[in-house]
Amino acid sequence: MALRDDKVTLSHGGGGKAMRDLIEEVFTAVFEPPGMEDQAVLEAAALAEPGARLAFTTDSFVVTPIEFPGGDIGKIAVCGTVNDLAVGGAVPLWLSAAFIIEEGTEIALLRRVVASMAREAAAAGVRIVTGDTKVVGRGACDTLFVTTSGVGVIPPGRAMGAARVRPGDVAIVNGVLGDHGAAILAARGDLALSTDLQSDCAALGHLMADVLAAAPGAKAARDLTRGGLASALNEIAETAGCGIEIAEEDLPLRAEVVGVCEILGLDPLYLANEGRLVVFVPEAEAAAALSAMRARAEGAGAAVIGRAVEGHVGQVRMRTAFGGARIVDMLVGEQLPRIC
Amino acid sequence: MALRDDKVTLSHGGGGKAMRDLIEEVFTAVFEPPGMEDQAVLEAAALAEPGARLAFTTDSFVVTPIEFPGGDIGKIAVCGTVNDLAVGGAVPLWLSAAFIIEEGTEIALLRRVVASMAREAAAAGVRIVTGDTKVVGRGACDTLFVTTSGVGVIPPGRAMGAARVRPGDVAIVNGVLGDHGAAILAARGDLALSTDLQSDCAALGHLMADVLAAAPGAKAARDLTRGGLASALNEIAETAGCGIEIAEEDLPLRAEVVGVCEILGLDPLYLANEGRLVVFVPEAEAAAALSAMRARAEGAGAAVIGRAVEGHVGQVRMRTAFGGARIVDMLVGEQLPRIC
Repeated sequence: MALRDDKVTLSHGGGGKAMRDLIEEVFTAVFEPPGMEDQAVLEAAALAEPGARLAFTTDSFVVTPIEFPGGDIGKIAVCGTVNDLAVGGAVPLWLSAAFIIEEGTEIALLRRVVASMAREAAAAGVRIVTGDTKVVGRGACDTLFVTTSGVGVIPPGRAMGAARVRPGDVAIVNGVLGDHGAAILAARGDLALSTDLQSDCAALGHLMADVLAAAPGAKAARDLTRGGLASALNEIAETAGCGIEIAEEDLPLRAEVVGVCEILGLDPLYLANEGRLVVFVPEAEAAAALSAMRARAEGAGAAVIGRAVEGHVGQVRMRTAFGGARIVDMLVGEQLPRIC
Repeated sequence: MALRDDKVTLSHGGGGKAMRDLIEEVFTAVFEPPGMEDQAVLEAAALAEPGARLAFTTDSFVVTPIEFPGGDIGKIAVCGTVNDLAVGGAVPLWLSAAFIIEEGTEIALLRRVVASMAREAAAAGVRIVTGDTKVVGRGACDTLFVTTSGVGVIPPGRAMGAARVRPGDVAIVNGVLGDHGAAILAARGDLALSTDLQSDCAALGHLMADVLAAAPGAKAARDLTRGGLASALNEIAETAGCGIEIAEEDLPLRAEVVGVCEILGLDPLYLANEGRLVVFVPEAEAAAALSAMRARAEGAGAAVIGRAVEGHVGQVRMRTAFGGARIVDMLVGEQLPRIC
C-alpha cells in the first residue's frame, strides 16, 4: 500500500511517484490493463475478418451527483459508451477511461467509482484497457469528470443507420422512459418529495446482440440519453426522410416519473435515459425483436411505441390519449444540465 | 449560420437543437467526421493484415492557459495522443475528441481550438472521426477540458516496449528539453521576466516512422510529458531491469530554459515536453536513428544523451559537468500542475 493519502492532491497529477502510486493502486490494480505501456496493444482478430469494420466513439461524463440511486458516474461512463457502440450494430470490445479529478477528492470515492466501472465492464463483456488521470486545483472542476472512449467491431454485412429506416418499420423501446432523468432530479434534492426512483443506467450490448439475432433486418437504433426519446426520434425522422408516429398510450411510463414531470413541468419524452434505446425493425421482425428484448432483464419492459410513416417527413407526431395529435419537436431549450 | 450566440450556454449541452447547432457549426463542419451517427464506422484495412495489432490510448488535457506561445489545448490534445501511439510503434490513424465546456466560454475560443486541432491532425496524418460535447455551469470547470483518444495500427512484427531495452542500447532525444514547461510557466505570468520561449508541442508520428525505418531494431520510446526526461528514463530503467547513464554535457538545453529553472529552483530534467521523445536503439543503429531525426524539423536538435548499462539496475545516473555523478530519481513531489 504505497498510497497513504485519503484525498487527491496536486502531486497525484504531477507525473512523478505519487501519480504512479495512485494509478497503480486505485486504477490499474482494478482494471488490469494488458501491459503497462502508455497505450494498449490489442490483438484484433475480430477486426481481421474480411468486411469487418471498426466502430469508435467517445463521451465525457459530468453527471451530478456523482453517486445516485441506481448508479454513479463510473457506471454511466461504461454503459454510455458501450451503448453508443451497441446501437450502431458494433460488438463492444475495449474501453479507455480518462479521469479529471479535483484536488481534495476523496480517494475512497475514486475507488468506488473504479469498482463500479470494473463491475459494469465485466458484465458488458468489455475490457478497460487504457486510461489517464489528471488532477486540477480546487474549484477548477466539480470533483470528478470521466471520459470513456470505446472500440468495437461491426461484423461483416451489418449496416445499421438512421438513413435505412423506411415507412412501415416498427419502433420498439426496451423499457419505461425517463427513470434516469427523474432519479437524478430527485437525487439532487431539488424536489420536495422523496421517491424510490432508480436510474435505468444499464449496458445494452447483450440486448442489442439478441435483438439483432432475432431481427437481422433491424434498421437503426439510438440510445435515449440527452434529449430523450423525442430527440432520438426527431433525428431518425430527419435522417431517414420519413415521418414517425407514436401513440401516447403505448409509451411505457412509470407513474412516479409522470408525477415528477407534472410537478416540475417537464415532459417525460425529453427526459434522459441511460439504459434505454429505440430500435426500428421491419414489421415482419417486430414480434421477434420484442420477444428477444423481453427475455432480458434490461428489456423486460419493452414495448412497441410507434412506426415510421410516409407522411409528415422529418416530423414526429404523437396520437394523444384523448384522440388528438401533437407534434413532438426536438428539445429547444435546456431541460436538465449535467444529467450524464 | 444557426448559431447566434457569442458564448456557450447550458442549452448548448442539453441534447436539443442548440446542442446540435453548436456541434454541427463549430465541430463537425471543421472535423468532417465520416457520417453523422453517434459512433464512427471505419474501414480497418490496415488492421486486417495478418499479425497487425491495434493500439488504443487516451489522455485528458487541462492545460492552463488554454492558449500559450507555440500552441493551445487543441494542438496539445492532438499531438499528445498521436505521440502516445507513435512511441509505442503504432501508426496513428484515428482520434476522438471530447470537450467539457464551461458555461460562458467564448465560442470564438472554441473555434480557434477546433481549427488548431484540425490543422495538427491534418499535419500528423490522422483524422478526428468522432466526438462529444458537454457543458457545465459556471465554476464547474475551468473554461475548457479536452480528452482525445487514439487508435492506431502496429504493423506485423513490430514490438516496441521498455522491457526490450538492453545494456549498450543508446538513448537519443529529438531536441532541446523543457521548452514546453518553461513556456507555460512564462505564459502564466508567474515569472517576473519575459521570454521568447515557445512550447515544443509537436506531433511526432512522422518522426517515429522515419526513425523506425532507419533503425528497425529500435527497442522502446517514450514521449517526455509530465515528469519530463527523468521520469521517462526511470520508468524504462525499472521495466528493462538495467541501469541508465546520461551525461549532463550531452543534454540539449536552451540557455533561457536553464535560466528560468535556476530562478525558480526547477530542474529541466523534470520539465514537461510536448514534442520530445527519447528512443533507445542498438548502438549499431544509433547514427542512422540520429540522422533520421535531424532530417526533420521536429528532430533538428536531436542528440545522443546516454545509454543503458549493466550496473545500478533500475537507476538513472548522470555524469555532471564537473565530473561527478548523481542519481536522477523519479519526480517525488509535484512540479507544475496543469502543464498538459
